[in-house]
Amino acid sequence: MLTTKTASNITAPTQFLQVKDERYAYRRFGKGSGRPLLFLQHFTGTLDNWDPAVTDLLASGREVILFESAGVGRSTGQVPKTVSGMARHALAFLDGLGLTTCDVLGFSLGGMVAQQMAQDCPSIFRRMILVGTAPRGGEDIMHLEKQSLARYFEDPTLQGYALLQKIFFAPTESSQAAGAAFIARLAQRQEDREPASGPEVAKAQVAAFREWEQFTGERFANLKSIRQPALIVNGIHDQMIPVSNSYWLSENLPNAVLLTYPDSGHGSIFQFHESFTRQATAFLASDSPFAPY
Amino acid sequence: MLTTKTASNITAPTQFLQVKDERYAYRRFGKGSGRPLLFLQHFTGTLDNWDPAVTDLLASGREVILFESAGVGRSTGQVPKTVSGMARHALAFLDGLGLTTCDVLGFSLGGMVAQQMAQDCPSIFRRMILVGTAPRGGEDIMHLEKQSLARYFEDPTLQGYALLQKIFFAPTESSQAAGAAFIARLAQRQEDREPASGPEVAKAQVAAFREWEQFTGERFANLKSIRQPALIVNGIHDQMIPVSNSYWLSENLPNAVLLTYPDSGHGSIFQFHESFTRQATAFLASDSPFAPY
Repeated sequence: MLTTKTASNITAPTQFLQVKDERYAYRRFGKGSGRPLLFLQHFTGTLDNWDPAVTDLLASGREVILFESAGVGRSTGQVPKTVSGMARHALAFLDGLGLTTCDVLGFSLGGMVAQQMAQDCPSIFRRMILVGTAPRGGEDIMHLEKQSLARYFEDPTLQGYALLQKIFFAPTESSQAAGAAFIARLAQRQEDREPASGPEVAKAQVAAFREWEQFTGERFANLKSIRQPALIVNGIHDQMIPVSNSYWLSENLPNAVLLTYPDSGHGSIFQFHESFTRQATAFLASDSPFAPY
Repeated sequence: MLTTKTASNITAPTQFLQVKDERYAYRRFGKGSGRPLLFLQHFTGTLDNWDPAVTDLLASGREVILFESAGVGRSTGQVPKTVSGMARHALAFLDGLGLTTCDVLGFSLGGMVAQQMAQDCPSIFRRMILVGTAPRGGEDIMHLEKQSLARYFEDPTLQGYALLQKIFFAPTESSQAAGAAFIARLAQRQEDREPASGPEVAKAQVAAFREWEQFTGERFANLKSIRQPALIVNGIHDQMIPVSNSYWLSENLPNAVLLTYPDSGHGSIFQFHESFTRQATAFLASDSPFAPY
């Protein structure tokens, strides 16, 4: 077992797994009777962008595995320009770990990768948590050039975490306060940190978003084949991937519960981490063939 | 205290409360540390239409109070032709009971009445559960004449419970099976039953739906004043009050969590009664000023 004794993303060491030509960075910690839970990360996020308030609580009942896709952080290789390419890396990684099945928490871009993996390899996931994400053919996915986001991205006074707080949280006092707390939690990890993503990562991932907005044939029909119980979560005021995309997911996935949070944006599960981890724990604890928990 | 020892809607006696000119039928049972939970009923529903799988479980942690509005069942008076008129009856009833504040579970028409009560008397509810309902100005609210519903209402072989099973549950094997179980639970109550609603009840309540679809000024702006933590619940395939109405509720109420259920229609909370009562119990147990639980 590659688990560590330190069940926190503040201190869990980054590990590396060589699979064919690539060497993937990842962290694996926690224990319990639950199935391992794979975390798939958002646009430009690294292992250091996982909120310990979420990972550590969930690690108290199962192993969590934080995966760094190719070309991100200390993982080698090129960032694929398609979600499908990213899904291949994640499937290769799980194969390299010897995991034939697990649960998944895919956030934003990671939620798209999770959907693609479930389509490419239907047995890989038992239960799926899809947060702040969109189906293939969704709309308004990560259009950083639109005014509501560009005003932050183009503000030279907003860099790094300060930018993250603005774009992940709603422009209310309560949501911004939750954002400040989130940032403080991310900053707790002092050593063994991943290098921040550069513009080349962003460029390739944005290309993947644009490709993901395309669809052929009947819109959302591809979702019918994802029969796993799914929990869809979205903040009501998400500017990066609007909640309408989560409505489509819950209406077109055959077996999905939708949970939306008020007063929150893309980072809703970090704002309401106590609620979210309680809900996720209950969802993952269920062995029902039906999503409701 | 008017509570009974029989904490089940299968056996709880119907009680009566005279307030001014009206004599309201109701049932009150259960106990626990939670605040009393007022149940407000759907189109043409009587006290006998409350699923004991929902009422009895919730009654294990608090008193539940099932209210029969004027002109329904054995309650005297005329069925109001507006939601506002129904809200006045419910507020008068609570006043007659000496309850100055409680929690509420409003289902369908009952959810509209709950919203109106919260606007007319902001202190009356601590937490609100709004199931399969719509905001003022919502759309496609109980249009029984549309083909997807008329095919059931105009089918002479479908009467009473058989009709209810068709219109409350999705046309899938799993949902219809859940519908059959729901009907069987409702039929468990053998004595002290309410008379079924006649066409005059339906006519007045449909008039109230039509009035509720109207709005003046900014659509949904009235919801901003309902600041109670709210839990919105809807089945994804609801034909009677489509889920889009719950999206509007959760987007425009300032403090609402949305939960949607797959493979289910208007009766989603009866289909997934184990999940719903678990979720409702957690929501009601919270004393947070924020809706997430």
